[in-house]
Amino acid sequence: MIEKTEALERLLQVGIALSSMENLDSLLDLILMEAQGIMSCDGASIFLVENNKLIFKAMRSGTYFKMWGEEKTRAIFKTFEMPLTKNSIAGYVALTATALNISDVSRIPAGEQYRYDHTLDERYGYKTVSLLVMPIKNKQNEVVGVLEMINAVENGKVTQFSSVDTEIAESFSSQAGVAIQNTSLTEQLREANYDTIFRLSVAAEYKDKETSNHIKRVSFYARLIADRLRYCSEDCKLIFWAAPMHDIGKLGIPDAILQKPGPLSPEERKKIEKHCVIGAKVLKDSKVPVILKSKVVALTHHEKYDGTGYPLKLKGNEIPVEGRLVAIADVFDALTSKRVYKAQLPEDQALKIMKEGRGTHFDPEMLDCFFDSIDDVSEIRSRYEDKAEDIDRLKEVENEDLKELLK
Amino acid sequence: MIEKTEALERLLQVGIALSSMENLDSLLDLILMEAQGIMSCDGASIFLVENNKLIFKAMRSGTYFKMWGEEKTRAIFKTFEMPLTKNSIAGYVALTATALNISDVSRIPAGEQYRYDHTLDERYGYKTVSLLVMPIKNKQNEVVGVLEMINAVENGKVTQFSSVDTEIAESFSSQAGVAIQNTSLTEQLREANYDTIFRLSVAAEYKDKETSNHIKRVSFYARLIADRLRYCSEDCKLIFWAAPMHDIGKLGIPDAILQKPGPLSPEERKKIEKHCVIGAKVLKDSKVPVILKSKVVALTHHEKYDGTGYPLKLKGNEIPVEGRLVAIADVFDALTSKRVYKAQLPEDQALKIMKEGRGTHFDPEMLDCFFDSIDDVSEIRSRYEDKAEDIDRLKEVENEDLKELLK
Repeated sequence: MIEKTEALERLLQVGIALSSMENLDSLLDLILMEAQGIMSCDGASIFLVENNKLIFKAMRSGTYFKMWGEEKTRAIFKTFEMPLTKNSIAGYVALTATALNISDVSRIPAGEQYRYDHTLDERYGYKTVSLLVMPIKNKQNEVVGVLEMINAVENGKVTQFSSVDTEIAESFSSQAGVAIQNTSLTEQLREANYDTIFRLSVAAEYKDKETSNHIKRVSFYARLIADRLRYCSEDCKLIFWAAPMHDIGKLGIPDAILQKPGPLSPEERKKIEKHCVIGAKVLKDSKVPVILKSKVVALTHHEKYDGTGYPLKLKGNEIPVEGRLVAIADVFDALTSKRVYKAQLPEDQALKIMKEGRGTHFDPEMLDCFFDSIDDVSEIRSRYEDKAEDIDRLKEVENEDLKELLK
Repeated sequence: MIEKTEALERLLQVGIALSSMENLDSLLDLILMEAQGIMSCDGASIFLVENNKLIFKAMRSGTYFKMWGEEKTRAIFKTFEMPLTKNSIAGYVALTATALNISDVSRIPAGEQYRYDHTLDERYGYKTVSLLVMPIKNKQNEVVGVLEMINAVENGKVTQFSSVDTEIAESFSSQAGVAIQNTSLTEQLREANYDTIFRLSVAAEYKDKETSNHIKRVSFYARLIADRLRYCSEDCKLIFWAAPMHDIGKLGIPDAILQKPGPLSPEERKKIEKHCVIGAKVLKDSKVPVILKSKVVALTHHEKYDGTGYPLKLKGNEIPVEGRLVAIADVFDALTSKRVYKAQLPEDQALKIMKEGRGTHFDPEMLDCFFDSIDDVSEIRSRYEDKAEDIDRLKEVENEDLKELLK
């Protein structure tokens, strides 16, 4: 049991902490940890309501963590779904949008619609006595989840939750609800932006690539190198999402050059090299970090370390980091992929050519990182292989089910 | 002066309210309103720190609102910038990251670095006495703004702020700081997504449009109609941001057809009509609302109300709303724009053709809304006119300053 003013002060701190989380999983864990602390209980778990189901998302438990450690406990209590009905305690709370303070789960009156499921307790030798179960509501007052606090503890002994606990838990659940909604919104917006970047990058290469996998592979390779170079996770992410747009300027190159099966004439080569500048023009003057980074990638991914690349003939560290990174990823993928004008090379031959470019075409340190990650590179290659069934899938529009597309 | 437990309970409510705002301006106004209420003061104003300057963003004032009303007061106290130095009170608080509780601004000791600027008080006949000025910090503990509370009021008389006020204001400023940061992040993410959509839509029309203004005009026209039809603001926004991608499938159409100066043969026409299906394929299987809506627009913006359009030959209300809307916007813009294969029509002739399509090509109700908004349509037309200096600006890459692009 907790003293009220003290609890209020703590809730204020917690509100700020919850609002500061940008990742849903970390937020849910923080909610559980604070619930354990504020309501002084042994365990806590959280369900989210999705598509008319209850999804068990996360739990913390003093007893299990002590017995097995956090990692093992989490491995045992993995996420699962259950039907959203009034038969379960969590389902009842979600559907009625009211809190339940149960002093002893073994004495739930026979007349209640819900009952306690003893399965897990019996399996793992735990004894749940008291429960405080709160609906979590969003800003529109819809129930989006359920927070369960398990076994109130006072002076080391299991007891029941007090009415002050219920009151405090209500404020806490409101804070949790808004934080969950905000974090989900942020995650959705990020995802929306990445989805847009990816789709339109694929669209831009519609005419000269046969599947959308080139873009995926280049992004993953570039991130591998950035990881190896120990860039911070924010920079690794930025590079991952800027890399897809490296060839966006191909949109401005005539079909006759882009799709030519044989080698290009010097004038044609000069024209195709313009794709770097066209891409940078399309992406310039943005305030958005990922677009700004993309502009630099588009402009500089054909520069070479010895200054013989294009369009700026930059040398060594004059070439921006992201351009040097994507150059390695892009060339390796080009060598190991089939294109309209060439066959693909086996990996060992491709790597030999890459190595020959160390210090001339490629930044030597970055190339070393690429070679150090070669197992991951191969894994990515096979995960995003250009499969026969994907080839021309993008271009095959005759047999598309239009009614299906309309949905 | 406020009683502490009561204040804490109120702050908890406020924290949730602040976290619920999705728009920065509304959030700042709510912060000011709550500051007035909780700290019982006549006025409050808020500065944000941006680019090493203090930006006066918003204010509320019991006295001025009573005297002039809200609208006039806001018109008088518009946003302005001031240098970030320790000479001003707000600047001092921002730079030292510490609160100031000033009981009487006319008695600031001579030794202090800051002084009170009486200019506005003298101009408008107000008398500032007490000030409580708080730094607003973000999650990284950086000062992002300053909250000023002006003239504490008790029993109708101006008094000074108490130490409990300072304590409560500190919690409140922390809540405000996190809320400002979250709302700014959400706004940035939305903007990032819109920027990406717009840039890549422009890129997709690189080969058959001479400026990027077609996309802007079509989006604005479509939103006008949606507004007139009294769609909710969320739907209007979605249509505005889905419209740019209507011709994304043009990416898949051969240059020879897309850029042909004369009329198209029946086979060529059939090929170009595929851009609807290609666009829908590029955009399908997304979970992102704006991409989903774009897919429907791409697929159905060439359907006609009488069932003679393509590719699905849908009729009347079988055609999704967003397809019917963009059809009107797109056709009107095509008629009134110059293209490689045709001159532009004067507005009256274009409108005559539009009217002839009422109930055959176009949804009659939507077309009526379009005609009802004709003044706004003309305004948009002239605002986003295809100007001579913009034409080929997109394609002109020879004279681009590459070093400038690199920045």
